[in-house]
Amino acid sequence: MIDPGQIKALTFDVFGTVVDWRSSIARAGQALGRAKHLDVDWMRFADAWRGLYQPAMDRVRRGEVPWTKLDDLHRASLVQLLDEFKIRGLNGAEIDDLNRAWHRLDPWPDAVAGLTRLKKRFILATLSNGNVALMVNMAKRAGLPWDAILGAEVVQCYKPQPRAYLGTAALLGLAPAECLMVAAHNGDLTAAQAQGFRTAFVLRPTEHGPGQKTDLKAERDWDVVATDFNDLASKLAC
Amino acid sequence: MIDPGQIKALTFDVFGTVVDWRSSIARAGQALGRAKHLDVDWMRFADAWRGLYQPAMDRVRRGEVPWTKLDDLHRASLVQLLDEFKIRGLNGAEIDDLNRAWHRLDPWPDAVAGLTRLKKRFILATLSNGNVALMVNMAKRAGLPWDAILGAEVVQCYKPQPRAYLGTAALLGLAPAECLMVAAHNGDLTAAQAQGFRTAFVLRPTEHGPGQKTDLKAERDWDVVATDFNDLASKLAC
Repeated sequence: MIDPGQIKALTFDVFGTVVDWRSSIARAGQALGRAKHLDVDWMRFADAWRGLYQPAMDRVRRGEVPWTKLDDLHRASLVQLLDEFKIRGLNGAEIDDLNRAWHRLDPWPDAVAGLTRLKKRFILATLSNGNVALMVNMAKRAGLPWDAILGAEVVQCYKPQPRAYLGTAALLGLAPAECLMVAAHNGDLTAAQAQGFRTAFVLRPTEHGPGQKTDLKAERDWDVVATDFNDLASKLAC
Repeated sequence: MIDPGQIKALTFDVFGTVVDWRSSIARAGQALGRAKHLDVDWMRFADAWRGLYQPAMDRVRRGEVPWTKLDDLHRASLVQLLDEFKIRGLNGAEIDDLNRAWHRLDPWPDAVAGLTRLKKRFILATLSNGNVALMVNMAKRAGLPWDAILGAEVVQCYKPQPRAYLGTAALLGLAPAECLMVAAHNGDLTAAQAQGFRTAFVLRPTEHGPGQKTDLKAERDWDVVATDFNDLASKLAC
């Protein structure tokens, strides 16, 4: 059991944990497809785009390319996918707008209500690989009540590398053990725990669609396991 | 006249502009003085502490010392002042707590209401020399509804150096001309304008007490001049 009194800040993974990127990206693609008469399986497109996410960050993590924010990694991946999916005839502004669909992701239905409860007691900070502008624009549109937008871009380091977690705790002026990492991904929590963070796993069993195979359960003895953000708020006495 | 439709984000100076540091620091000192039976002119103490603010940052700006966050500059200045004011008998925890009085500054009476109106239309970000933890803790206590905590520590550069402004706009994904710098200090606005920011001067004629000599009026033709944050909101059609 966790003692909520020992926790000062909740740090959040965002893609998949707070927002439903897959449906949101697919809907943005479908809207574009109707406008431009494109015949594309946009769910498969969303999965393919997200599939290029880790490989793109890996090049930054390994130092093969200098620090590059996620918006720019997303756009390079998008250009590659437009070719693979044989999507022709988009101009630069249309490609930019599709890329910014990541700024317009919809939250899971419980996210705003749960965060609003949690905010009364804890500092709520993003600890996402998304860049600051992406996170700010997403929060503004979706009503996500963050106290601080931190994470990868601010510390110039992508999760799960240690400095992403340690640098965020340091900016908050907190010891890692005063921070509770909230994520729907066991791997993120493993990396956070290795740096001394407390851990909360939130189930998001349809992040990858109805056939999801990963992160369907807590794979380790996390400090908190919650079915959604309202359940998390209740388990933290909010 | 400014067209509010061209502005995406308001970036705020905080000390003096959003919060009344002088009265707040003096009150914290007075409370400590009563508890510890200290005979100190705490208004003079607050002024002296603030008086060491620019010299301390200057050493960082000139590269004489590596990047140092404001909490640490404040604490070194405090230790110096305890000696100068002959304040004896505080232990380390008591000195730390007094130092964190900067995290507990009270907003000017119009600040929360004005920011709440402005937030409906614009991104509100701090662009202060205060460090992230200081800004987050202050906002949490005072109810300041920031969308993002940015500024000096995030870009590792103290205002009025250009990168403090340019780095903040870049993190927001905005051109400087889409950002409106809000400050009660002509010097801050001069530096922001030189980097392409739009400018809003807010009158805070008692920041330094009843005998204030500086920043009693707009010294240049700023884009907006406002008597307080509610007036600023009205002038930006919020």
